[in-house]
Amino acid sequence: MPHNPVIDLAHSPHAILKPIPISSVKLTDSFLQPRREINRTVTLIAQLNQCEITGRIDNFRVASGRKQGEFQGIFFNDSDIYKWLEAAAFSLGVDPDPELDAKVDAVIDDIAAAQQPNGYLNTYYMFAREKDRFSNLKDMHEIYCAGHLIQAAVAHFRATGKRTLLDVACKLSDHLYDQFGPGKRLGTCGHEEAEMALVELYRATGEQRYLTLAHCMMEARGKTPGIFGNGRYHQDHLPFTEQKEMVGHAVRHLYYMCGGADVALEAQPAGYAEALETLWQNFTQRRMYVTGGAGARYEGESFGDDYELPNDRAYTETCAAIASVMWNWRMLHLTGESRFADMLELALYNAVLPGISLDGTHYFYENPLANRGEHRRQEWFGCACCPPNIARLLASLPGYFYSVSPNNVWIHLYAQGEAQIPLPNGETLHLDIETNYPWSGEVRITILKAPKTPITLNLRIPAWAGSGIVENAGKTQEATSGYVGVTQAWQAGDSLTLSLPLETKLIESHPHLQNNRGRVALQRGAIVYCLEQADHADVDVWEVAISPRTAWKSLYRPELLNGVVVLLGEGEALNTSGWENRLYRTYVAQKHEAPIKIALTAVPYYVWANREAGAMQVWLPLVED
Amino acid sequence: MPHNPVIDLAHSPHAILKPIPISSVKLTDSFLQPRREINRTVTLIAQLNQCEITGRIDNFRVASGRKQGEFQGIFFNDSDIYKWLEAAAFSLGVDPDPELDAKVDAVIDDIAAAQQPNGYLNTYYMFAREKDRFSNLKDMHEIYCAGHLIQAAVAHFRATGKRTLLDVACKLSDHLYDQFGPGKRLGTCGHEEAEMALVELYRATGEQRYLTLAHCMMEARGKTPGIFGNGRYHQDHLPFTEQKEMVGHAVRHLYYMCGGADVALEAQPAGYAEALETLWQNFTQRRMYVTGGAGARYEGESFGDDYELPNDRAYTETCAAIASVMWNWRMLHLTGESRFADMLELALYNAVLPGISLDGTHYFYENPLANRGEHRRQEWFGCACCPPNIARLLASLPGYFYSVSPNNVWIHLYAQGEAQIPLPNGETLHLDIETNYPWSGEVRITILKAPKTPITLNLRIPAWAGSGIVENAGKTQEATSGYVGVTQAWQAGDSLTLSLPLETKLIESHPHLQNNRGRVALQRGAIVYCLEQADHADVDVWEVAISPRTAWKSLYRPELLNGVVVLLGEGEALNTSGWENRLYRTYVAQKHEAPIKIALTAVPYYVWANREAGAMQVWLPLVED
Repeated sequence: MPHNPVIDLAHSPHAILKPIPISSVKLTDSFLQPRREINRTVTLIAQLNQCEITGRIDNFRVASGRKQGEFQGIFFNDSDIYKWLEAAAFSLGVDPDPELDAKVDAVIDDIAAAQQPNGYLNTYYMFAREKDRFSNLKDMHEIYCAGHLIQAAVAHFRATGKRTLLDVACKLSDHLYDQFGPGKRLGTCGHEEAEMALVELYRATGEQRYLTLAHCMMEARGKTPGIFGNGRYHQDHLPFTEQKEMVGHAVRHLYYMCGGADVALEAQPAGYAEALETLWQNFTQRRMYVTGGAGARYEGESFGDDYELPNDRAYTETCAAIASVMWNWRMLHLTGESRFADMLELALYNAVLPGISLDGTHYFYENPLANRGEHRRQEWFGCACCPPNIARLLASLPGYFYSVSPNNVWIHLYAQGEAQIPLPNGETLHLDIETNYPWSGEVRITILKAPKTPITLNLRIPAWAGSGIVENAGKTQEATSGYVGVTQAWQAGDSLTLSLPLETKLIESHPHLQNNRGRVALQRGAIVYCLEQADHADVDVWEVAISPRTAWKSLYRPELLNGVVVLLGEGEALNTSGWENRLYRTYVAQKHEAPIKIALTAVPYYVWANREAGAMQVWLPLVED
Repeated sequence: MPHNPVIDLAHSPHAILKPIPISSVKLTDSFLQPRREINRTVTLIAQLNQCEITGRIDNFRVASGRKQGEFQGIFFNDSDIYKWLEAAAFSLGVDPDPELDAKVDAVIDDIAAAQQPNGYLNTYYMFAREKDRFSNLKDMHEIYCAGHLIQAAVAHFRATGKRTLLDVACKLSDHLYDQFGPGKRLGTCGHEEAEMALVELYRATGEQRYLTLAHCMMEARGKTPGIFGNGRYHQDHLPFTEQKEMVGHAVRHLYYMCGGADVALEAQPAGYAEALETLWQNFTQRRMYVTGGAGARYEGESFGDDYELPNDRAYTETCAAIASVMWNWRMLHLTGESRFADMLELALYNAVLPGISLDGTHYFYENPLANRGEHRRQEWFGCACCPPNIARLLASLPGYFYSVSPNNVWIHLYAQGEAQIPLPNGETLHLDIETNYPWSGEVRITILKAPKTPITLNLRIPAWAGSGIVENAGKTQEATSGYVGVTQAWQAGDSLTLSLPLETKLIESHPHLQNNRGRVALQRGAIVYCLEQADHADVDVWEVAISPRTAWKSLYRPELLNGVVVLLGEGEALNTSGWENRLYRTYVAQKHEAPIKIALTAVPYYVWANREAGAMQVWLPLVED
């Protein structure tokens, strides 16, 4: 079994928890595993094809002289094939596949052949452009592309044991170290990414200089004068440890946070823990969508001000949600605190999953929370950062379920399946999970093979549940949100159950979030819902209001959208008479004498736009009564 | 007295109404005239200084060889000094000022000296850049700058009779005609402006080719393939007569509409009237702020989708509101319909006036309808389109009050003052207006000098009033919104009064305008109000709600903000407890047992941000009761 955790914290001095290999976990659930299977059998193949037909792989062949031609596409296109390789590597680590393995080897061969003798590798900066290398760090994504190469190489090495891509990554990283290491030019990429990648390369190789370089790059921002003009778009306005707000390009800032957390896990530089906490609070308490999504503005693909979270023009790039998952994963291991797992789960189910169609072939770049039906997933993008980013997350998903610490196993997420969890003392805990989570709050954990030493099983009680009940050998224990630990000398055949209350809740937002005033969102368990036009023949879903007293019934519909729990309730049609050809009028109190009642069906937000095009909204007006 | 109307439709075959000279109208009111006086005595001087210190005038001196140096600033900076010249010319036509006249002549002399022998004039495209002239019409604003030169030249000629700048404009326009006239290269500017300017040059000179060129430029968009890639940003997606929606860059589309209306006023090409009407309806019924402002999106400074009108991120560029005034002015003369005067008044008082501080020295580029206090007017901008645009509108403002048609005088706007209105038959009607409009709805019109022939005085009953009462010689007549005509053989000393009901109204918006759900705006007469923090020591103005049953009292406060009517009412403090460090929570019904009552003072939106920085909002939440 390969040692292929999502990030490898086995030797990280400041990691309170340690991830386990992706390949230790086998999902057999009907919520996530079908998406992973589509990812492996459909998405990965289609994405490789897209990279081929759009010239993304040819760019390497041209750079190495294997093919004649010019650079094609956008200057950062190398990163897409790197992310695809990382996704494929994660997949190979869980589901060995000789055919995919051969394809991966072929792509790696093309990449390795394009590397320059000095280690440099970026297919845009070849030939006539060679003189411009590292001349525009702010805009040209050279080091960002290197970061994605490094992540792919580390994942490939861990999954397959092959050093073919890792050697390329090391050679390139050594070249970067010579350019931007201690005492050399102050520099990093305008788009963060390499920071976290270099820390992982350090973890994979043990070479201290990669961690040093990551730390140098974390510290390159916010100088006077700034390497990127001290702009907030690039997070160059303040040094990392002085930043208080999530600003500028959302994916960049969130990747920066990942880098900061990774450096903290290894070296905990002064001020890093405080900055990570301050910025996490700003994000989750001021600048995050109810779905866990990030990025309020189209302009600059950026965070907005506090409480600036428009619904119809939510940018909420899929990559930003993925970045939030990655950051929260690192924070969880740095602190052991369940609030980070709560945010990881929220973003994963409600902000990442909407990014890809159920059939695995179409993608959202932006994820609005209200739409008239014109926003549809696309097969590919000129700037195709999101598709392979989703692919790598889905491929690595089993790695996000468990962590360990001495004599402890931590269960963060729940899904039907099995896990063979390697414990720090070398023993293994083999678990079976029975659940219909997230549709059900009942989870049964059965020990298939127990370690000899007693260990504590820590079960996460999600914040959305408030509390949960653990039943073990006839004894029940109620616990509030957080991790509830059950310690004993386990025997094969032991089982315990966790019961989480699954109610449909109305969520309201802070009064300063102006566009949600008088509106609520529906959430059941970990899942945020929406109204979609496809379920409502008789009313425009933008023209209904609901009462806070409505009793919502949940119903599992296995035939619908790969199987979802829908919420059934009643609303009132808004009185829209008199609005023909008018935008404003003198206020008319709504008539409530005989409201028109409308049967409503809410579906999980993550499945929206998988049927015929139509209106959708997450935040539903409350009846003014 | 100069013949200096805002646009000269004296000989326009399709103009139902004809504007009168700006200099025919003398405003003595306390609402607009003080702003005009500040404009003349402070703003114009400061703007000329800004143009000088930022190198905008030096660019001409460098181009002519009078000075050594390089082009400074942004490539379209020529247009700012042209707009300043137009403003100064309008001012000179009303208020002769030898000192300003000399400054204008000096600037014109620098401009004329920079013109090339073939007529070309754009200070960016000199010397090494000469080879690139007209090579990038989409982005580089060459013809846009020419358009502003033409408008300045026409205004200067009409105000002073001098041909110094007009000759420059004709020579440049002849050069443009040679490049882009019939049978030549299909082309126009990526930023519309020259279309309307060329029609005015035709009106000022009688040279048919300028109208022909304007028509060519109107028709250059929407071809297959498009000269600007068929992009909506540039309104190149469809031919003018096939466009149905206001899209892309707001100022560009609105200037395009001005050009279309101007060509229609002269030639009424097939489909123009229908396109103008369709697009006006789309604008006013789907894509316009309650203030009359235009442009929902920061990205691309553009219109949004139908009903996409965010408040905190309203872009609402001041120039776009000015463009709406200009378009509605043209539509009013093309049709004679009061709805265009309604929109002109709305935009002028609520979307243009906020663009400049009461002291005439600071400007808004964007005009949000809700803000936390960080948005403040600036002294100048790198892209300084708005400041001189406001200056030229304020300088020409008296020209927007009256129009004539055979035996008819049309009164569109009301303000204390006098007018000597030249009638089509050569006679003059001399009027005196007594009113405290817009604070009062009472207008007394006294005839100071009457023409020999009977004429109809047409008084506009604004749509906001619904109806009004005209009293003439003891007889009263009630009329609904539109123009109410009073025909008689007038005598000096005759007077009539118009009474418009001025109530404080709550305005609501279309149900699809999601962020205004459960909110209302306050409007009294033509003036839209806001709550500003400066008037509320005890509550955050983002944390109050009002009842639709609140009785609002109006109070004129002469000492406040140059004299405004404030609205006094009562609201309730929102219950914000329990929201510390939270962005979302399970819905809690608001407690209404003992709401905390708050005394509220609403001020006109146009004066916001003239006091200490603080929160502001136009759309106020309704109490959920």
